[in-house]
Amino acid sequence: MASARPQSVTARQPLGGEPVARACVVGASGFAGALAAALAWNHPQVALEAVTARSDVGRRLDDIYPRHRVPLELEPFDADRLADRADVALVSYPHGAAAPVVAELRDRGLRIVDLSADFRLRDPALREHWYGPHGAPEAQAEAVFGLTELYREAIAGAALVANPGCYSTAAILALAPLARADLIADAVVDAKSGVSGAGRAATDTTHFVAVDENVTPYGVSGHRHGPEIDQELAALGCAVQPSFTPHLLPLDQGLLASCYVTTPRELTAGELADLFDQAYEGEPFIEVVDRPPGVRDVRDTNFARIHTFVDARGRALVFCAIDNLWKGAAGQAMQNLNVMLALDETAGLAGGPR
Amino acid sequence: MASARPQSVTARQPLGGEPVARACVVGASGFAGALAAALAWNHPQVALEAVTARSDVGRRLDDIYPRHRVPLELEPFDADRLADRADVALVSYPHGAAAPVVAELRDRGLRIVDLSADFRLRDPALREHWYGPHGAPEAQAEAVFGLTELYREAIAGAALVANPGCYSTAAILALAPLARADLIADAVVDAKSGVSGAGRAATDTTHFVAVDENVTPYGVSGHRHGPEIDQELAALGCAVQPSFTPHLLPLDQGLLASCYVTTPRELTAGELADLFDQAYEGEPFIEVVDRPPGVRDVRDTNFARIHTFVDARGRALVFCAIDNLWKGAAGQAMQNLNVMLALDETAGLAGGPR
Amino acid sequence: MASARPQSVTARQPLGGEPVARACVVGASGFAGALAAALAWNHPQVALEAVTARSDVGRRLDDIYPRHRVPLELEPFDADRLADRADVALVSYPHGAAAPVVAELRDRGLRIVDLSADFRLRDPALREHWYGPHGAPEAQAEAVFGLTELYREAIAGAALVANPGCYSTAAILALAPLARADLIADAVVDAKSGVSGAGRAATDTTHFVAVDENVTPYGVSGHRHGPEIDQELAALGCAVQPSFTPHLLPLDQGLLASCYVTTPRELTAGELADLFDQAYEGEPFIEVVDRPPGVRDVRDTNFARIHTFVDARGRALVFCAIDNLWKGAAGQAMQNLNVMLALDETAGLAGGPR
Amino acid sequence: MASARPQSVTARQPLGGEPVARACVVGASGFAGALAAALAWNHPQVALEAVTARSDVGRRLDDIYPRHRVPLELEPFDADRLADRADVALVSYPHGAAAPVVAELRDRGLRIVDLSADFRLRDPALREHWYGPHGAPEAQAEAVFGLTELYREAIAGAALVANPGCYSTAAILALAPLARADLIADAVVDAKSGVSGAGRAATDTTHFVAVDENVTPYGVSGHRHGPEIDQELAALGCAVQPSFTPHLLPLDQGLLASCYVTTPRELTAGELADLFDQAYEGEPFIEVVDRPPGVRDVRDTNFARIHTFVDARGRALVFCAIDNLWKGAAGQAMQNLNVMLALDETAGLAGGPR
Repeated sequence: MASARPQSVTARQPLGGEPVARACVVGASGFAGALAAALAWNHPQVALEAVTARSDVGRRLDDIYPRHRVPLELEPFDADRLADRADVALVSYPHGAAAPVVAELRDRGLRIVDLSADFRLRDPALREHWYGPHGAPEAQAEAVFGLTELYREAIAGAALVANPGCYSTAAILALAPLARADLIADAVVDAKSGVSGAGRAATDTTHFVAVDENVTPYGVSGHRHGPEIDQELAALGCAVQPSFTPHLLPLDQGLLASCYVTTPRELTAGELADLFDQAYEGEPFIEVVDRPPGVRDVRDTNFARIHTFVDARGRALVFCAIDNLWKGAAGQAMQNLNVMLALDETAGLAGGPR
Repeated sequence: MASARPQSVTARQPLGGEPVARACVVGASGFAGALAAALAWNHPQVALEAVTARSDVGRRLDDIYPRHRVPLELEPFDADRLADRADVALVSYPHGAAAPVVAELRDRGLRIVDLSADFRLRDPALREHWYGPHGAPEAQAEAVFGLTELYREAIAGAALVANPGCYSTAAILALAPLARADLIADAVVDAKSGVSGAGRAATDTTHFVAVDENVTPYGVSGHRHGPEIDQELAALGCAVQPSFTPHLLPLDQGLLASCYVTTPRELTAGELADLFDQAYEGEPFIEVVDRPPGVRDVRDTNFARIHTFVDARGRALVFCAIDNLWKGAAGQAMQNLNVMLALDETAGLAGGPR
Repeated sequence: MASARPQSVTARQPLGGEPVARACVVGASGFAGALAAALAWNHPQVALEAVTARSDVGRRLDDIYPRHRVPLELEPFDADRLADRADVALVSYPHGAAAPVVAELRDRGLRIVDLSADFRLRDPALREHWYGPHGAPEAQAEAVFGLTELYREAIAGAALVANPGCYSTAAILALAPLARADLIADAVVDAKSGVSGAGRAATDTTHFVAVDENVTPYGVSGHRHGPEIDQELAALGCAVQPSFTPHLLPLDQGLLASCYVTTPRELTAGELADLFDQAYEGEPFIEVVDRPPGVRDVRDTNFARIHTFVDARGRALVFCAIDNLWKGAAGQAMQNLNVMLALDETAGLAGGPR
Repeated sequence: MASARPQSVTARQPLGGEPVARACVVGASGFAGALAAALAWNHPQVALEAVTARSDVGRRLDDIYPRHRVPLELEPFDADRLADRADVALVSYPHGAAAPVVAELRDRGLRIVDLSADFRLRDPALREHWYGPHGAPEAQAEAVFGLTELYREAIAGAALVANPGCYSTAAILALAPLARADLIADAVVDAKSGVSGAGRAATDTTHFVAVDENVTPYGVSGHRHGPEIDQELAALGCAVQPSFTPHLLPLDQGLLASCYVTTPRELTAGELADLFDQAYEGEPFIEVVDRPPGVRDVRDTNFARIHTFVDARGRALVFCAIDNLWKGAAGQAMQNLNVMLALDETAGLAGGPR
């Protein structure tokens, strides 16, 4: 009955001609996985060959997510079948479930961007504390933390990229220039996220009536993205572990990290701004701007928009806004894939008008 | 740890002194049941003796619904225990589950307002078509349809009141004056509701991300409130069955019925307005107003706010806004209970400032 | 201070190489004009040479609308300067203000898509009734009504296209197949729109607190898009003038027209669906689908998504969802411009993942 | 035409019989003033004699704010006329405009709660820095800072109460127990507010489309409520001036202050909770609770809901949620008026079910 609607297809040649890589998305029925599929589907140099899911097998992706308009049918996961058809995989399974399928696909030679937390934490004890026993410890060694702006070179050669969490992405981008310059004596990260960050599962927490006209702190006693932030600050030579508290907001996509940094010496606003300008000069997805960012400014884009200020108490303020599903998940995954494939880092991400 | 928080109690004397009736709310863990409990808890002449639930037994109601601040613990349903402590019951179970508990409580002599659909439809065949076999057919005969403005006298003496659906309430209030005057030749009801109307269950439909920035028609092939509207128009002598289509809106509470009525002869705007003014003169909860109502105007109140107009095509337009949880559910239930108890109809419903 | 932020530029070569046309957007500081500028800026075959505004002259467009990321500075309107630099203009002035600038630009030979209502109504009396004296009556004769799917051929050769209103677009697309087949005996259009349809002006009506958690009918006594709908149905041979009532919803972009059509003979659901499938076969921006559309499905796209049904009363129901700023304004303007320039109709509109 | 709608009246006897005081609301057309009028209108022991406004004179308040249902007509300000009819005044003018009318009313003997900032800051230099020359310096001496929980005794005897800002109220309630115990070595206050806090004026900032799906820090370079917080912490013996940053959220009513406090010695979570339990024991409007509060929990109430925690870094976290229009403005004003009139502090504020 749908005259203008494309028929179900099993793959599509990229818009830009002969593909550089054949991709599959494993776990495409969740929010991040579905966007990863949409990004791959529209990528000029990547052919999306398959989308898999644990639930909803047999449904077409554009039936679940009309907006993405990806007319592929969800398949069950089958490592051999995927290995026949794809060179690279974007894996978007829940934490814990991802590691085994990553291992299976790595065994078959696919290069992978994993959107779960399974390979993010390098310290085995810390990892086990937060997530339980590792599902694929042998693959951990080759995992590169996928914050593109920090690990671009390693990502270029990586077989497995551990895409960071949404909060971690915003917080690390906001704090890295200060950490690298040894300018963090203490830090508070107050983060605010839209509901898509909580995933597609229908729960008391994601019910419209629970979120609407509300704002609530959560994960107060500890949130899994905290150790990612600590790990990456430490890697930059900063021993400070920020106080990090997420809050849930009545909006769908968008994440703001408001970072309050005590510096060992007082900076001027100009010094602070220069530090960020230099740190992110030439970065295609970092916008350092002269007024506080709103998450609307980056909605449906892969940009991180950052503003800095030194307040009357001498504290350094850094605000970083991202779209949690883009730069905080699927967008950064595609950015990493572009780096891995030696493509233009913005390919398939520059986007059109919004 | 909660110094200012009231301790759990098992009941409370009403604010107005010796209670006229002792009430229980059966099924208090859903949105409508919880509001019914809050209304009873704050009622000046009713003592709320017990709240029961099928899930969440043992939790305090103010833990699930902080905003209502009812410090009672949810009990399992036990007809004998309830009959010992209460004279009247507000039952807020899902359709189908309500009838048996209503029957049990009726057997023990309690007078009941049932918020489910189980006793709304008088035609057994129609009832069975929409809801399956009747769970308590013997109780049906004594049920009075609980649209207060239409059945006030019968409700006063009723042992069992079948509280109408939210859409039905708004649509019938909007159409009744025209139906009674034999002025409906044809009618379209385009209704819009907030998400609380879909209940507390977390589903794909009530997920914040599904509703936010969206509006969708649903129940297009038939919605259960349709036959309630037809039944009550017929009872007023109108054989027309309106086309009725609900839509889901990104808001929590509020329902607007936009009614487009073809009249057998063209009315003037003044005639139409007079018809409604007269029909609802003296009604404590009906506001006939001279501009289109918004659902914000009636949020957290038991008012139905109605505006009429005759458009350039000669069609009669009637807009009726209610709060789906108040006049569309628990508020009207309490209004009916007040009538049953020969109390001031607005007792416990007049509300304070909003 | 904005390292990654592009410097202000005065124009940009299109992404696709040598431009087919040089465009300007007149009135780019409003919502529709700004999106028109964004669409032109990202168009593969059009060079955006200038953006003008009445207010905000001297500000960069990406300062007002960060999300669009168009780094052009708003200029004052100067017909001569624009004529030197542009071949085509998208005019997005308020009603009444548009006609004179359209006339000035037409005098200088530019082909124009006008997003205002100034040239939409062909009947001078009707036009004057709704909008007052015509600001450029001499240009009216060459104006083509810009509903692409209805007037594609005339648009291809047009010097001046009168882009339809957002409500008109959705309603006409929903009703045209029925009108053309002489299947409308009576019709009600209940339309719901997001707030961006009310424009950028800050008023009591567009204040967040007025809209949030609300839904209100407005324009009940007559809305300017009504005569556009009537005019186009009449052009298709249908004398029926639908009852049309718009409602304001708490969302930013999106418009749903729910159309309730009495047909002279009862249709089956299949007949109705076939009628729409055939009517819109091959249309790149019309999606006829088998379930009710939500406005989220078309957000930030130029699609109109249509679902039909025949209800139990035998009435034909047609639901049409569009993004009011895209298919309802700037998107359709660009679609029309593509037709005028003999480009692929979807150029610059196919969009990437959302 | 409005049958059920009360006629315009000029005043009303309180529901509780002979009034203890006759009140007027000066500046009742803004959000806070209108709620103050609604609270007074529904107060059991206060008679609301007049409502005035600078704009909208002659309009009925229930025409502007249907939800409050206060059927009084807005009058122009006339100190003599008000002094004839009222003993007390709630003044809700913009900053700067309030001081002169407060002085006029004080000259005529009325006791006043002023909701503006004009009398909040005791340091003349600081006051002038933020607000310019004082409009009524002679009245400043008698002003008492109206945070009820801190100044109850002084308020009881006060002729003029300077009602605190919404952010100040939440932040001071969250920090006062720590300040009093000399437990603040450093503090960050990240505050989030709904749009009603920005007032009724329609601006680019309060436009629905600017706020919806957005969150933005603002006042980053200094917000007027900062010095109020500093002043009151200092009054409690705490020299620390917190870093304070407000954020605008897509909701209408509600304010959350997330406070991150470095303590001179590490507290246990139990110690911290005990400190707050003791500090607020018996307070009718402070709820110290064992999980993070959401602003929905306090919507349309005068409660401040507070949760404390000590995070893994040893930092004390205090979250305080209020309704910015109630405890953050008009509710606290009525609480103060109750104290001034030696009434039950909760009179007219206990509210019914929400």
